[in-house]
Amino acid sequence: MRSRQPSSAPAGRLLYAQSGGVTAVINASAAGVIATARAHGVTVYAARNGILGALREDLIDTSKETAATIAALAHTPGGAFGSCRYKLKSLDDNRAEYTRLIDVLRAHDIRWFLYNGGNDSADTALKISQLGRTMGYDIRCIGVPKTVDNDLAVTDCCPGFGSVAKYTAISTREASLDVASMAETSTKVFILEVMGRHAGWIAAAAGLAGSAPDDAPHVILFPERAFDERAFLDRVKATVERVGWCTVVASEGVRNAAGEFLAEAGTRDAFGHSQLGGVAPVLAALVRDKLGYKYHWAVPDYLQRSARHIASRVDAEQAYAVGKAAVEYALAGMNAVMPVIVRTSDSPYRWKVDAAALSKIANREKKMPAGFLSKDGFGITAAARRYLAPLIRGEAPLPYGKDGLPVYVQLKNRAVQKKLADFQV
Amino acid sequence: MRSRQPSSAPAGRLLYAQSGGVTAVINASAAGVIATARAHGVTVYAARNGILGALREDLIDTSKETAATIAALAHTPGGAFGSCRYKLKSLDDNRAEYTRLIDVLRAHDIRWFLYNGGNDSADTALKISQLGRTMGYDIRCIGVPKTVDNDLAVTDCCPGFGSVAKYTAISTREASLDVASMAETSTKVFILEVMGRHAGWIAAAAGLAGSAPDDAPHVILFPERAFDERAFLDRVKATVERVGWCTVVASEGVRNAAGEFLAEAGTRDAFGHSQLGGVAPVLAALVRDKLGYKYHWAVPDYLQRSARHIASRVDAEQAYAVGKAAVEYALAGMNAVMPVIVRTSDSPYRWKVDAAALSKIANREKKMPAGFLSKDGFGITAAARRYLAPLIRGEAPLPYGKDGLPVYVQLKNRAVQKKLADFQV
Repeated sequence: MRSRQPSSAPAGRLLYAQSGGVTAVINASAAGVIATARAHGVTVYAARNGILGALREDLIDTSKETAATIAALAHTPGGAFGSCRYKLKSLDDNRAEYTRLIDVLRAHDIRWFLYNGGNDSADTALKISQLGRTMGYDIRCIGVPKTVDNDLAVTDCCPGFGSVAKYTAISTREASLDVASMAETSTKVFILEVMGRHAGWIAAAAGLAGSAPDDAPHVILFPERAFDERAFLDRVKATVERVGWCTVVASEGVRNAAGEFLAEAGTRDAFGHSQLGGVAPVLAALVRDKLGYKYHWAVPDYLQRSARHIASRVDAEQAYAVGKAAVEYALAGMNAVMPVIVRTSDSPYRWKVDAAALSKIANREKKMPAGFLSKDGFGITAAARRYLAPLIRGEAPLPYGKDGLPVYVQLKNRAVQKKLADFQV
Repeated sequence: MRSRQPSSAPAGRLLYAQSGGVTAVINASAAGVIATARAHGVTVYAARNGILGALREDLIDTSKETAATIAALAHTPGGAFGSCRYKLKSLDDNRAEYTRLIDVLRAHDIRWFLYNGGNDSADTALKISQLGRTMGYDIRCIGVPKTVDNDLAVTDCCPGFGSVAKYTAISTREASLDVASMAETSTKVFILEVMGRHAGWIAAAAGLAGSAPDDAPHVILFPERAFDERAFLDRVKATVERVGWCTVVASEGVRNAAGEFLAEAGTRDAFGHSQLGGVAPVLAALVRDKLGYKYHWAVPDYLQRSARHIASRVDAEQAYAVGKAAVEYALAGMNAVMPVIVRTSDSPYRWKVDAAALSKIANREKKMPAGFLSKDGFGITAAARRYLAPLIRGEAPLPYGKDGLPVYVQLKNRAVQKKLADFQV
C-alpha cells in the first residue's frame, strides 16, 4: 500500500541502502526514511544487500509494504533489506562499477540515494555524491549514520551505539550480581568481551553499570591503551582481595605494547579489517595461569548489537530522526552530507539533528578523548559519564506475542522488475 | 523492620540458604519465603553463602529489611545472600560438620531449614532433614527447587529455567536477524553456545525462536546425542546453500562418540564437575577449516542466567510460588520434601505446586525425553514445543531508573550476633 501522493510530489525515486554491520536500530532509520518519503509522495526503493543490490539492479519496492509494517520495522533489529561489506574502489580503479551504477539509477529514475552506514560507507556515499561532477549523472547522495562502534567523526554519537551501550551496562550489572553471589566458592574473576575494534566506546559504556569505587566493572580494558599484563594482573588481584571478586570488561580490540591484538584470529574482512573475537579467553587463561583464580568469560558478540529488546529510547529516537532528516535534506536538494547528532546540553540532555559534510566523515575514525579514560587506564572519568549517561536513557518497549517473544516484522521485500542485463559483482 | 506477628506465631526461626549456580529468579523464591514467613509471624535468617554460612554461624537477619526491599528482591537477579558450591559429606565421613550445624541451629532456635538449589543441594537438604533421626535434633528441612539446567527430577520444570529459555530464544532470534542481513558478504555461520552440562534443555529452548523449517536455529547440538562431525558439517553446508546462512545453537555439554566434551577446560568445580566453556570456538574452527565459511560465535555465559531484564513471567511466578509453598510446608510440619511444579494442562497452560519427597530428587538428573529430539538429532519435536512453549510466556517488567538501568535492590544483610566459637570450613 502506498500513501497518497501530494500533488506537488517531486519526480523521481529515492534509493535507500544499508551497509556494514547492522544494529538494533538501523531499521528505525529505515522506517524514518520510508515514512518521511511517503509523506512527501516519494517512492523508496531499497537495494538488497546494500550497494551490491544497486550494482546488480536487485531492488526492492518498499511501497508494497503497509504503513503498519513500516511502523513495526522501527522496532525490528538487523537490516531488513540486507547489508553488505563492500567498498567501491576509486573511479580510476573501477570505472565499470560506476558506469553500471549510473545505468541502474537512470533506468529506475533514481534521483536521491541514501546510504546508511559507518565511515567506510560514508566514503562510498561521498563517491556517489560526486557522480554528477565525475560522470555526468545528477544524483543527490546523503549518508545516514549508523555504527555500534560510535567512531564516526563530527556527530556527537552514532545511532546504534546507545543501544549496545545500554545492553553492555545492564549485562555487566546483572552478571556481576551473579558473580558476587558465587565468589566465595566459585568464580572470582568474570571477563566480558565487548565489540569495538579500534575505539573503546562500548567498553567505556560498561562503566555506567557502577558508580561507587568498588562497583563492577572493576577493570575496563580499552584499545586506546596498550595492555600492560603486570598492571592488569595486579589490579585484578587487588580487587579480588578487597572486594572478593572482580569483573573485567575488555574491548575486542585490546592490543599489547607492540600494537598486536591480544586475540588475533588471523582472518580479514572485505574492508581489510582483522576479524577479531576471543580476547576474553586469552585474558581468562592469564588470570588462571598467573593468579590461579577460578574464572568465567562471556563473549556476547552479535547478541549485543541485535538486542532490540533492551534498546535505548534515546538511541531509537535518534536513529529514526536521522532517517527522517536524510530524506528532508535529499528532497531539499542537498548533496554529500550526513545528518548528525548535535548535543546542545548535557543536563538536561538535549540534542538536534544537523547536516555535516560527508568529506569530514568518510574514512575517519573518532577515538575516545584522552580525558575519558582514568589515569590508570582501567576506568572512565566523570567527563566520560557525562557524555555516555544520556545515551542509554529510556526504554523503547516492544510488542510481545503470546508466545513470549518480541514481535519482529518480516518484510515482503518485493523485487522491482529488472530493466537491464545482468552485471557480475 | 519486622512485620507484626500474629498472636499464634509459632516459636522458633526459619533459616533460608541459596546453593549452587544462581538464576535470574532465585531471589523471587527468597522473596516468597520471607514474605510468607513474615505473614506467619516467623523470622527468617539467611545463611551467608549457602550452607557455608550455616556452618560458620554467618547468619543474616532478614527482618532488618523493609517490605519494599523484599518486594524489590523478587525482581533482582543473582543470589542476594550469597550462594556456594559445597556438598556436605555423608554423616560417616564428616560427623564434625553435622555436629556443628546442629550447634548453630540450636543456638539460634532454628526449627525450619529451607535450602534453595539443584539436585546436589537436594541431597544436602535430605541429609539435614534426617538430623532428627541421625543426630537427635528435630529440624524440618524443605528443598526449594532452582536450576537453569531444568534437570531436577519429579518437578515438571525448574524455576530459573524459563527465564534462561526465554533469553536464549530471544537472543537466537535477534542475532539471526543480524546474521541474515550480513550473510551475502560476511558471516554465514553463527554459533551460539548455551549452558547445560549434561542435559540439553536450554539448547532445546532456542528452538522456540523459529517455527518454519528454514527459521533459525537451523542446527541444535545436544549433550544427549554424540557429536557426529560429518553429519554436522553436512547439515551446516546444506543450510548455507539453501538459506544463505546458518545459526547453530550448541550446548556447552556436547560430547563426541567417545563421551569426551568437545570443550574440556580441564578444571573441575567443588562437586567434581568439569568446568566447561568454549565449545563454540571449537565448532567455529571446524566450520572454517572444513567448510571455509566466515563465522561468528557467542558465549553469553553468566549473562544468560542473570538476565532478569528479560525474565519469563511464568518462571518468575513459579519461583515465588515455590518459596511461598516451602514455608507453608515447613510450618505445617512437613519434612524432607520439595515443592515442585505440576503441570495440569498444556493448553491452556495450567500448573500448581505440590510436595515431592527429596529422596526422589537428590542426586538425580532429568534428561530430555528421547521424543523431544528430532530424528536427525539437530532439532526439537512438536512434543518438545508443547512442553517448552508455556515456560517462556509473559514478560516480567522491571522498574528502570532515570539512568536507563534496571533498579535492582541491595540488601543490608545485617549479621546476626554470633553465639558460638569459630569453626573452620
